[in-house]
Amino acid sequence: MVERLQPEIDGGRFAVKRTVGESVSITVDVFADGHDLVAGVLKYRLAGAPEGRPKAEGQGPKAEGQGPKAEGQGPPKAEGRGPREELWDEIPLTELGDDRWGASFTVTELGEYEYTVEAWIDRFGSWLRELTAKADASQDVASELLEGAELLDSLVRLKADTTSDVVSGFSRTGDVVSGFRRTDEDDDRILEIADLLRSGRPQAERVDAARDPHLRTLVAARPDRSESTTYDRVLRVTVDPVRARFGAWYEMFPRSCTSDSKRSGTFREAEARLPDIAAMGFDVVYLPPVHPIGRTHRKGRNNSLTSSAGDPGSPWAIGSDDGGHTAIEPGLGTLDDFDRFVETASHLGLDVALDIAFQASPDHPWVHEHPEWFRHRPDGSIKYAENPPKKYQDIYPFDFGSSDRPGLWTALRDVFLFWIEHGVRIFRVDNPHTKPFGFWEWCIADIKRAHPDAVFLSEAFTRPKVMRYLAKAGFTQSYTYFTWRNSASELREYLTELTRTEVMEYLRPNFFANTPDILHEYLQRGGRPAFEVRFVLAATLGASYGVYSGFELCENTAIRHGSEEYLDSEKYQIKPRNWNQPGNLKELIARVNTIRRDHPALQQNATLRFHGSSADALLWFSKKSGSDLVFVAANTTPHDMQHGWVEVPIHELGIAPDAPYVVEDLLDEATYMWRGAWNYVRLEPAERMAHIFVVRHPSVSRHP
Amino acid sequence: MVERLQPEIDGGRFAVKRTVGESVSITVDVFADGHDLVAGVLKYRLAGAPEGRPKAEGQGPKAEGQGPKAEGQGPPKAEGRGPREELWDEIPLTELGDDRWGASFTVTELGEYEYTVEAWIDRFGSWLRELTAKADASQDVASELLEGAELLDSLVRLKADTTSDVVSGFSRTGDVVSGFRRTDEDDDRILEIADLLRSGRPQAERVDAARDPHLRTLVAARPDRSESTTYDRVLRVTVDPVRARFGAWYEMFPRSCTSDSKRSGTFREAEARLPDIAAMGFDVVYLPPVHPIGRTHRKGRNNSLTSSAGDPGSPWAIGSDDGGHTAIEPGLGTLDDFDRFVETASHLGLDVALDIAFQASPDHPWVHEHPEWFRHRPDGSIKYAENPPKKYQDIYPFDFGSSDRPGLWTALRDVFLFWIEHGVRIFRVDNPHTKPFGFWEWCIADIKRAHPDAVFLSEAFTRPKVMRYLAKAGFTQSYTYFTWRNSASELREYLTELTRTEVMEYLRPNFFANTPDILHEYLQRGGRPAFEVRFVLAATLGASYGVYSGFELCENTAIRHGSEEYLDSEKYQIKPRNWNQPGNLKELIARVNTIRRDHPALQQNATLRFHGSSADALLWFSKKSGSDLVFVAANTTPHDMQHGWVEVPIHELGIAPDAPYVVEDLLDEATYMWRGAWNYVRLEPAERMAHIFVVRHPSVSRHP
Repeated sequence: MVERLQPEIDGGRFAVKRTVGESVSITVDVFADGHDLVAGVLKYRLAGAPEGRPKAEGQGPKAEGQGPKAEGQGPPKAEGRGPREELWDEIPLTELGDDRWGASFTVTELGEYEYTVEAWIDRFGSWLRELTAKADASQDVASELLEGAELLDSLVRLKADTTSDVVSGFSRTGDVVSGFRRTDEDDDRILEIADLLRSGRPQAERVDAARDPHLRTLVAARPDRSESTTYDRVLRVTVDPVRARFGAWYEMFPRSCTSDSKRSGTFREAEARLPDIAAMGFDVVYLPPVHPIGRTHRKGRNNSLTSSAGDPGSPWAIGSDDGGHTAIEPGLGTLDDFDRFVETASHLGLDVALDIAFQASPDHPWVHEHPEWFRHRPDGSIKYAENPPKKYQDIYPFDFGSSDRPGLWTALRDVFLFWIEHGVRIFRVDNPHTKPFGFWEWCIADIKRAHPDAVFLSEAFTRPKVMRYLAKAGFTQSYTYFTWRNSASELREYLTELTRTEVMEYLRPNFFANTPDILHEYLQRGGRPAFEVRFVLAATLGASYGVYSGFELCENTAIRHGSEEYLDSEKYQIKPRNWNQPGNLKELIARVNTIRRDHPALQQNATLRFHGSSADALLWFSKKSGSDLVFVAANTTPHDMQHGWVEVPIHELGIAPDAPYVVEDLLDEATYMWRGAWNYVRLEPAERMAHIFVVRHPSVSRHP
Repeated sequence: MVERLQPEIDGGRFAVKRTVGESVSITVDVFADGHDLVAGVLKYRLAGAPEGRPKAEGQGPKAEGQGPKAEGQGPPKAEGRGPREELWDEIPLTELGDDRWGASFTVTELGEYEYTVEAWIDRFGSWLRELTAKADASQDVASELLEGAELLDSLVRLKADTTSDVVSGFSRTGDVVSGFRRTDEDDDRILEIADLLRSGRPQAERVDAARDPHLRTLVAARPDRSESTTYDRVLRVTVDPVRARFGAWYEMFPRSCTSDSKRSGTFREAEARLPDIAAMGFDVVYLPPVHPIGRTHRKGRNNSLTSSAGDPGSPWAIGSDDGGHTAIEPGLGTLDDFDRFVETASHLGLDVALDIAFQASPDHPWVHEHPEWFRHRPDGSIKYAENPPKKYQDIYPFDFGSSDRPGLWTALRDVFLFWIEHGVRIFRVDNPHTKPFGFWEWCIADIKRAHPDAVFLSEAFTRPKVMRYLAKAGFTQSYTYFTWRNSASELREYLTELTRTEVMEYLRPNFFANTPDILHEYLQRGGRPAFEVRFVLAATLGASYGVYSGFELCENTAIRHGSEEYLDSEKYQIKPRNWNQPGNLKELIARVNTIRRDHPALQQNATLRFHGSSADALLWFSKKSGSDLVFVAANTTPHDMQHGWVEVPIHELGIAPDAPYVVEDLLDEATYMWRGAWNYVRLEPAERMAHIFVVRHPSVSRHP
């Protein structure tokens, strides 16, 4: 029996996620009736075209010429390969106890991998165990030796039935996987031993020949898999680029890149901001929608219902006479200007991420060209967006159940493809939870077949299960509740859910410290220390994190008490700033982003551990990757000093209880002499809100 | 989306188990994209013939005339019932929070039920919520009222498309489930309200009409399920007789019912033992194999390799010239005698359970009639059973992979059917883990189709996953590690695994305090107090439990130090006893079995809870069923007094912290005045090893 293969999401309905170079470690129950020994392999392969897989619900039509690229294909099917249709790579299972077995493989290519487990009765091993038990009890084993000779003959005969000469039974040494190779010489050697077992030589000599470890090795390459059992599902891994796992995002409105708040900044002007952003160490520059903005019911400053002349409107009210989702707002420049912006960013090591919001202003060309793509009221007018009693008259949602569903879905999919053609690979998707799950599952899978390097960030702030489902349905990354998790206990609980449950297999959090929609009360009231600690927490708890511009200036004025909206929000007006004004956080940001790049431990979330802390508000955690180990201490109360004792797992680090060791704060290179498991930490808001420590000790080497 | 339906075993591969009258409580995630409300139903039905279900692995041939009986059938398929093929009963889902929903149904018939979940967008509810939000904000709702009128029209139209006039939307009051019935009058009323909504009456009046709770009720019977989502699997429940859940077993060798140890007792003599067994309150009399015993390599007393004249041999060495698995050992009498024994037992309220051991002595008729049903050595001889270096020359195992597999499997299945014809419904199956899982899955399912009241107890003492798999594959009950779990901490851990994990959905433990193979050191050394406490623990921790005869006499002499085998084991010799010898436990046994029958709490394991105890070796737990609540305190150290404080969840019982209450020990009717949560208990081995308490308090009524 082969059961409970992990990781597996919803019975294999959804793929787990990895980035290139990561490994998939599986565990599985393998057992048989009776007393025979079992053996098995983890089987994996790069998947080919997805025919025969479960279809996405509500699957839309496929666009012409969007077939999978060659990289996404499995190896071609070999002729005469026997009953198995395509070649799998195989890794032997290792027994973990209690009939649980494990193995792991590394994904090296973008796209999709498949994996499953095959196991069988280890006939030779079972026979050898029986022979050994009897021989050790000085019993006559003449009959058993004859059985063994027959078994060896049959295993050599089996080989003749297959064409592959590299078979299961891989040996793994470090990172080198080498298949046992069957040779005719080995076959001859096995047959020789079979002849010896049935010969008239003394039993002791024959038993010794059977027990020879070299025979075990030869036979391991020839298992009898004719009655093997394969796990009844083939599971999938989506392999994304490293940026899907690790990246620092900076959100900015290019139109604010101007010295004149009455005129939209242009992409040309925004280019001039990029070196500063790169110098802060960000990896991704993320832009709100860059498309023409509607005029009808345009919102004025601070979300007022009427706009004044010169008000630029909300970038999310997409579409005007100048075009829709594949056009550029004229105030920002031209498509050529956009291309140049992307290119300049790229030279600075910055990826550009675009916000894709599937909704239209009443002036969007599609409103006239495709009225059937929208919902209508009984009087025939198009329904605008609402969240009763709130009304959004400047926005029409699409009707995803439109009578022309194929036309609408394909057009929306093609919006992504258009921007991919213009060099964009990262998309932040606006409110995906208000569109059908089935649309996203189809759309993302369809795009990733040709563009497995595309990254989709789900901007859904809704119920936990809906957010998780969007991640399962295909989103590469997900916004989270991080902005609303400010106390140490909230963070411990939330991060444990994200990193210690099945959720971590498919939902990659992207921790934004603020957004144009969310200025949390914690930042409104906590002053600069609040910004410092929230930045350090986002950047160290989250391998992916982001800030919305203005964060580095500690902008913290809300439109009114009790609201998370910014006063004079950039969503409705142009907002030039002095990026070097006193008190800015640019040095801290640059420092932390450098630490992130230097330390693989901070480039993933899987190893996050919270350790003991004597003060509840003093958060103390670590991340580890290979030999790289980073500890973070953070004061989560910006108005109060926190101090207390924090626990270092010195036993795991090989540090003796009475041995001194040094910890270095990577933020200021200060060093502290510590001893024993519990050591004292004091975080005074006026001085610092956090430490990022590495341990200096002979057994703990600093990366690299 | 409809996800994570629980209970579900291995993605629906296996059924959960219930007994007649029990309920199945399900929980499930139900959510949709967007903001619409959802609604749904739990659907269930008695299953018909199992065509279309996943086949058992290695499924054997079906015997003639073994089709399902009428009781096992679902309702006949109605003509013109619409897209759904068979009628389901439906229970509305109730929201539990966080997009989790729940419902439950009661199984009332033996056989197999199916269940799944269907959910849909609640269009009327969503519309009403929107209307209400806008009306409450004094917004114009003219357009919304027109939409509502159209919606009501469409729901009435939908009804015309279905033939059923009893539909989903059941209301559940207590145990009465009543379907909403659609009538033409109700349709007319809905259409009237639709007309009102689109009329020229004042908006406030029309909004009030829409909000009328009576309209909500009418509409609840007419959900628009045209775009509903059904959970993608249909799950199964095996419904067994109550005896599968609750019973006290007594194992006895009928051949020992004689006053002359040189002569086998007969069924006629064994009948005379039955009143004593019934008086002790047992429910099941379980007999080791009753078939003719082989002569070749017959084992002598104390398992010696050679037998003397008069040695009766092991009942598990089945088959001689007198017949095999469907014959009666001549020393016991005839088949008629057996039938009479079963009848007498039945009159006394005792079910007879037979031990079915699929193996043959060398003298079994099948050895000559069907040599191909056995394994052969290279020299052509048949292989006897071994567990190297141990040999069992008196037993041949069957070769389940025989070239005549259909013949062998069918013959073995027919052994059960033979004894079913002779009134036996309970089978204790010997060593099922040494036979293929696939055989059991086929054999048990095939028998239970015609005989859903059959009970199969798996006697597998092997690795946990193999034991669990046998339970999943169809065994009704399972032997456990109970005999080897003697300390309080071992019992807490083991019972938590059995009753607090998914295992409880499919594995029903039967706690034997001893067996002919297992006399635990705890009993060998612990004297009468050890027997007392192990009996009380088996009978209160396990709704099903058993003892092997001699237990009540505290027989505790092992064959040698370090062995769990009895000296002069009844397996190899006839062993008359004086059942009334001084010091016997019959009174305690009768008392506890009476308490078990009086208290539904002790007739199931699902509600077992361990409560706080200040002394680790003082086990303190409760079971609850309806208003029946029983607490047990047990001293797990037969040589030492245990005393300490035990915790009563008085808050849950509605007992004030300072209010006195009385607990009564059902074993001796002694009462104790307690107060508060923690109370003192003292268990002195010379006096008592356990209390079985009920709480006497106005709010806690004793079960009649």
